[in-house]
Amino acid sequence: MAQTNTTLQRIGMKHGAGGRSMRLLIEQVLVDRTSPIANVMDDGAAIPLGDEWLILTTDSHVIHPLVFPGGDIGRLAVAGTVNDLAMMGATEPLGLTCGLILEEGFPLDDLKTIRSSMERTCTEAGAPIVSGDTKVMGRGEVDGLVLNTTGVGIARRVVRDSGLKPGDLLIVTGTLGDHGIAVMAARHQLDLGGALQSDVAPLNSLIRAALLAGGDGITAMKDPTRGGAASALHEMAEKSGVGIQLDERALPVRDEVRAAAELLGLDPLMIANEGKALLGVHPDAADIVLRAVRAHPLGRDAAVIGVCSGELRGSVVLDTGFGRRLLTEPDGELLPRIC
Amino acid sequence: MAQTNTTLQRIGMKHGAGGRSMRLLIEQVLVDRTSPIANVMDDGAAIPLGDEWLILTTDSHVIHPLVFPGGDIGRLAVAGTVNDLAMMGATEPLGLTCGLILEEGFPLDDLKTIRSSMERTCTEAGAPIVSGDTKVMGRGEVDGLVLNTTGVGIARRVVRDSGLKPGDLLIVTGTLGDHGIAVMAARHQLDLGGALQSDVAPLNSLIRAALLAGGDGITAMKDPTRGGAASALHEMAEKSGVGIQLDERALPVRDEVRAAAELLGLDPLMIANEGKALLGVHPDAADIVLRAVRAHPLGRDAAVIGVCSGELRGSVVLDTGFGRRLLTEPDGELLPRIC
Repeated sequence: MAQTNTTLQRIGMKHGAGGRSMRLLIEQVLVDRTSPIANVMDDGAAIPLGDEWLILTTDSHVIHPLVFPGGDIGRLAVAGTVNDLAMMGATEPLGLTCGLILEEGFPLDDLKTIRSSMERTCTEAGAPIVSGDTKVMGRGEVDGLVLNTTGVGIARRVVRDSGLKPGDLLIVTGTLGDHGIAVMAARHQLDLGGALQSDVAPLNSLIRAALLAGGDGITAMKDPTRGGAASALHEMAEKSGVGIQLDERALPVRDEVRAAAELLGLDPLMIANEGKALLGVHPDAADIVLRAVRAHPLGRDAAVIGVCSGELRGSVVLDTGFGRRLLTEPDGELLPRIC
Repeated sequence: MAQTNTTLQRIGMKHGAGGRSMRLLIEQVLVDRTSPIANVMDDGAAIPLGDEWLILTTDSHVIHPLVFPGGDIGRLAVAGTVNDLAMMGATEPLGLTCGLILEEGFPLDDLKTIRSSMERTCTEAGAPIVSGDTKVMGRGEVDGLVLNTTGVGIARRVVRDSGLKPGDLLIVTGTLGDHGIAVMAARHQLDLGGALQSDVAPLNSLIRAALLAGGDGITAMKDPTRGGAASALHEMAEKSGVGIQLDERALPVRDEVRAAAELLGLDPLMIANEGKALLGVHPDAADIVLRAVRAHPLGRDAAVIGVCSGELRGSVVLDTGFGRRLLTEPDGELLPRIC
């Protein structure tokens, strides 16, 4: 196993927030490339199955509050898992599992609300929950409810977040920052007249349309959840070995989100999304993919936001229109329990 | 959805302990047979895939203490998921996912210990962990560590816990009560000179040997985890529509376990096992299956413990040698966080 920093002896909040600290923790403590648990750091796994691939992905949800403007933990869990499958090319989930961990005293009515929400989201995504497990912990041993969902699907072609090539364009399927800002505003009881809503939604039908239009021209996909677009783009740049140049003026961000983010001292690029995807697209396929994405109800605000190059590999450069600066990778501790 | 008991408004510890209350909660609140999340109550799911079956199963682990005589939460999680797959006929896992939920301040050394234990158990079972997710909750928001594992495997024939037929014999693959008693003894700092050890182990190679020997003669399988053998047998009897008659004198229970159980006021039949299986076997196949199981290091204490009939369907009757009595289904609240 890799040596860990000798001063680090305990887990901190930043290790669970999807940023750099978390990546280092996973790389240093949880991953040994020679062991049977080598791939713990990948969101999803692809297992060969005949001439197709079995895609397997897992996610635990600890969001606070459990219900937030635009969604709740149930919708978040189902959509999150459906989206992780879709990002690897499995747009028709075979099945999801649901692991519930409840605190003693949890209100049954809340459980029913969350269950109904999961049900609606499953219907929307065409993704059945096929198996479940329920555990109860004592009062004070878990805060309300933790929800794990794991999904399995089949992909004819596996799309990875490491497939970017110099020259590829980057498309985002819609506005950035909506989920995280809606949750943070709810926590701070910031009332902007209902204008802030999480974007949480299953993206598999949108991704299916994009793949149908773009085929092999779609070279990489990733959903910018924890750590936001900045974290996702850093990971894509690093894994793909390309530099990414972003056009700040092209980034779609709602005015309300921009305003609330300023009020809260946050950068929309660093904030979690739960209903958006970043697509790497060969320049020849960019137009047709953008058209297909925009034709979908969840993709109306899609935009080309950047381009990949062979320079500054592993880095993300933000072109502000006035100049260029390196976009830092968020360390993520600012936003605990955001998903 | 079915009507719930109008007096029940909050989750209690008993709802997570694997007994009757939990089954009712799941049936009443979580399951609607017409919905896309219809099958939340099954440990595992079987999804048709060509002429085979994809088996999918999930389990969350909240055990306290995290390390106990004979095992730890890491071994428990891997073995538990491998065993759930095996019970449905998938004895060669394709992959496992691992969802970690950590409390801020969790010692890194403990995480490494658990990680190593998972690794060893994965090697033992031939089951790779292919994907993972890590979340951190604040201090006091989760007690130490919660671990979800989900597994996927292929079965040529799906074995269910509902397949018992009148005349079938019941085989248990070894002694009962070891896991639960070891954990409870550790919690109560009951020192019996190291005699109490959890049986936690991956059973897939044992089950593979049994299936190879018994073929279709194995009609049902279930691992007696939460709620112990009593809960598992009740579920098998009810789902299969048979009565089960148990021979109390044939039940293998270690003397130390029997003694400790008496001291703690517990019944070994009601206590969780994590390395045992209950097999329903056609009488013609019983000898060959019993021989195959006993030839495996984890099956040396295997025994025929009962027989199925068409009488008292859904019930489990215990023949004590002096008389017969109905075995009650445990309500499970006695043993929180046992797995």
